[in-house]
Amino acid sequence: MRDVAIIGIGHTKFGRASNTLLELFSEAALQAIDDAGVDLKDIGAIFQGAALPGFEEGQVTPPGFSAAELNLSPIPATRYEGACASASIAIREAAMWVASGEYDVVLAGGVEKALSMGTLYATRTFAMACHAPTEGPVGLTFPGVFAMAARQYSKNYGISIDKLREKMAHVSIKNHRHGALNPLAQFYNKLGDLKVEDVINSRLVADPLTLLDCCPFSDGAAAIVLCSAEEARKYTDDPVYILGTGQGSGGPLSKMEDLTKPVSRISSARMAFKRAGLVPSDIEVLELHDCFTIAELIALESMGFFGWGEAADATVEGLTDLGGKIPVNMSGGLIGKGHPIGATGASQVYWLVKQMRGEAPKGIQINPVPEYGMTDTLGGDLGTLCHIILGRTKK
Amino acid sequence: MRDVAIIGIGHTKFGRASNTLLELFSEAALQAIDDAGVDLKDIGAIFQGAALPGFEEGQVTPPGFSAAELNLSPIPATRYEGACASASIAIREAAMWVASGEYDVVLAGGVEKALSMGTLYATRTFAMACHAPTEGPVGLTFPGVFAMAARQYSKNYGISIDKLREKMAHVSIKNHRHGALNPLAQFYNKLGDLKVEDVINSRLVADPLTLLDCCPFSDGAAAIVLCSAEEARKYTDDPVYILGTGQGSGGPLSKMEDLTKPVSRISSARMAFKRAGLVPSDIEVLELHDCFTIAELIALESMGFFGWGEAADATVEGLTDLGGKIPVNMSGGLIGKGHPIGATGASQVYWLVKQMRGEAPKGIQINPVPEYGMTDTLGGDLGTLCHIILGRTKK
Repeated sequence: MRDVAIIGIGHTKFGRASNTLLELFSEAALQAIDDAGVDLKDIGAIFQGAALPGFEEGQVTPPGFSAAELNLSPIPATRYEGACASASIAIREAAMWVASGEYDVVLAGGVEKALSMGTLYATRTFAMACHAPTEGPVGLTFPGVFAMAARQYSKNYGISIDKLREKMAHVSIKNHRHGALNPLAQFYNKLGDLKVEDVINSRLVADPLTLLDCCPFSDGAAAIVLCSAEEARKYTDDPVYILGTGQGSGGPLSKMEDLTKPVSRISSARMAFKRAGLVPSDIEVLELHDCFTIAELIALESMGFFGWGEAADATVEGLTDLGGKIPVNMSGGLIGKGHPIGATGASQVYWLVKQMRGEAPKGIQINPVPEYGMTDTLGGDLGTLCHIILGRTKK
Repeated sequence: MRDVAIIGIGHTKFGRASNTLLELFSEAALQAIDDAGVDLKDIGAIFQGAALPGFEEGQVTPPGFSAAELNLSPIPATRYEGACASASIAIREAAMWVASGEYDVVLAGGVEKALSMGTLYATRTFAMACHAPTEGPVGLTFPGVFAMAARQYSKNYGISIDKLREKMAHVSIKNHRHGALNPLAQFYNKLGDLKVEDVINSRLVADPLTLLDCCPFSDGAAAIVLCSAEEARKYTDDPVYILGTGQGSGGPLSKMEDLTKPVSRISSARMAFKRAGLVPSDIEVLELHDCFTIAELIALESMGFFGWGEAADATVEGLTDLGGKIPVNMSGGLIGKGHPIGATGASQVYWLVKQMRGEAPKGIQINPVPEYGMTDTLGGDLGTLCHIILGRTKK
C-alpha cells in the first residue's frame, strides 16, 4: 500500500447559500483542483459525502452529476452517507483507493444544504439518523440525545447541572471566538466575545443545552484532492500526508451503557492512532465534532486526550485553546464555523491542512506550524464515527 | 493487492415485506454468514447499499444499526448510495478493502423497502435520482427516461415502434419465465407463460412501454461474505472469485448524445473486463439491469455482447436465453425477480454464485456450470454504472 497525500483544498463560505447542492460542491471542488494544480484528466474518481440531498433538493445520488459539472464524466463517482460523518468516510475511502494503486489522483469532499431546508424540517430530517424503530417514535432529536449525555456526564462525575452549564459554556466561548476570526465561518465577525452568562442565559433548547451550546444548521461544501505520496511533490511544496484513519459503528442508544463513553468513538480513534503509529500526545491540532458543547468534552475524553471527566475543567483552564496542551477547533468547529452535515468532515480536513501549511487566518493560526493533526467526526447519535490523522511528514 | 473470493450468500424473498429495513438486511446477512461458516468476530466491516431508507422508514444511515443487530458493533459500517446500483458499489468497495489487506472477512449487500412505500410515492421518490435542476422540474420519471430510450432505439435502427414493442416483449417473456421458476422472486409461479400480445396489450405506462415492459417495485435484501482468496478454501469448497469490477458516471440526460449508448456503462464495463482480463465472449452467465425491457437491449449492446442495434433480434432468436450464446437474467432479472433498489446489485451477485455453484433452481440452472459470470447494475437515469465479473477460478 502506498502513502497518500493531500495536495489541494477547497471550501465554500458556510452559512446560507443560494446556489444548488451541485453548484456548491463544484465551487469547493474547483478550488481544490486549482489549489492542487492537477489536470482534470488526471482525476480518477470522485468520493462525495452528502447526508440528506434527497430531502434538501430532491436530488438523490449527486456525485455523477458533480462529475458531469466538473467535466469529469465518466469517471467513477460515489456517494457515501454516514450522516454528519459522510465526508470523513468519503475521504477515508478515497485514501484507501489511492493507497491501493487503483487511482493516482482523486477528488473527495462533501456538500449539504441543511440551513436552506428550514429549521423545523431540518430538525425532523436530521433525526432520521437516530434508530427509526425505537428512537424515532419517541420523538428523539439530536439536541435531546446530547442533553441526555450532559446529564449522564453530570451524574458520572458529580458535577451539578448548573456547574456543568458553566463549564460547557467555555466550549461555546472558545469556538465562537475562533469562528468569529474565520472568514469562511457562518458566524464570522459575530459572537466572538461571549461571556459565560450569554451562553447559559440564551434560549433553552434541550435542558441543559441552550441555543449557544448548539451548532447551527448550515449550507456549504468542502473538497480535497489526494494523490500518492510519491507524486505529491510534483504538485506542491506543502503536501500533507494521511497517516492513519479509523471508523467505528454504534447501535441504538438503548443498547449503550454510557452515552459519554461511546465504544464507536473509542474503537475508531484507537484504529486511527494505531495506523498512524501515534498517540494523543503527538497531536498538535484537533478538529472535532462539537455539534453541542457537551459533545466536545465527550470527544476529547473518548479519544484519550483527557481522562474521563477531566475535559470540562481542562477546557475552563484553556488547555484546549490556542497555546494550550491541545488546541481544539481553531476553525470555530461546528459551533462557530457551521455544520453543513455531509461537508463537515472535509471542512475539518481543510482547516487542518490550512494550519499545517501555516495559512490559517490571523488569530487562529497555531505557531509553530503543527506537525500532526487529527479530525473527529460523528454521524447520527454516536452511530458512525470516523477519524483521520494528518502529518507534515510521512511515517 | 490480494485476490478476493465470495464464500457466503444470503437473499430474502423479494416482494412485499412486513419486516423493517434492518430486519430484512439482518435476514440476508445471517444467511450469508451461516452459508460462509465464518465467526461473527472475524467480520471486519459492513458495506451496505440502500438508496432511499430515509423516505421509506425515516431511517437514514442504517449500517451502524445493522452492525448492532448482528452483534458486530463497533466495526466500521458504511452506507453506499448510487440509486439502483447501491449494492454493487458497496460490493466493489468491499472487494477493494479485502484486496488491500485491511480486512480479511467482510459483509456486503443491500436492502430496500420500495414496494412498501406505495406506488405513487415510490415513483416520485425514485425520480429524485434524476438530475434535480433540469429533469425534476419537467416531471421526468424513470419510465419516461426509458420510453425515450426506446424511441431513440427505434429511430437509430429504423425499427418501427410497433415492431420494437414486439421485440421488447421477448425480454419480458424470457425474464418472467425465469422469475416464475425462482422461489425467491416476486413473481414466483406467476406470469411464467406470457405471450407477445400479453405484453404489448398490458396497461400503457410510458409510450411505448407497457406495464409488462417494467420491473415492479419490491422490498428485499441480499448479502454476501467476502474474504481473501487464500483463505477462502478454509470456509468453502466452492469459492467464487471477484475477477474485476468497474464503475462509471453519467451526467444529465440533456448532455447525453444518445440514450442508447451511455458512455457511463461503456466505460464501466470496459474497466471491469480489463481488470478481469476477459472479453464478453468469455462470460457464460449475465445478470443485467433490466429495469425495463428496452434497458436489457441497451445494456447488452453497451457492454459489447452484441453489436449496436443487434440485441433486439438476438433476444427474439433466443440467444440470451438458456442454451443461447449468453444466458441473461436466468434469475428473472429485475422484471421477473423484483427490484428492491439498493439490494439489486447484491441479488445479482447472489444469483451468479448460485449458478456457478450449480445450485440455481430447476429450469434456470445453466449446464455445464458456468465458469465466468458478470453483473451489470444501473443507478439513476444512466448516472451510475457498476459491473462485477466473477469466476470459479482465480486469474
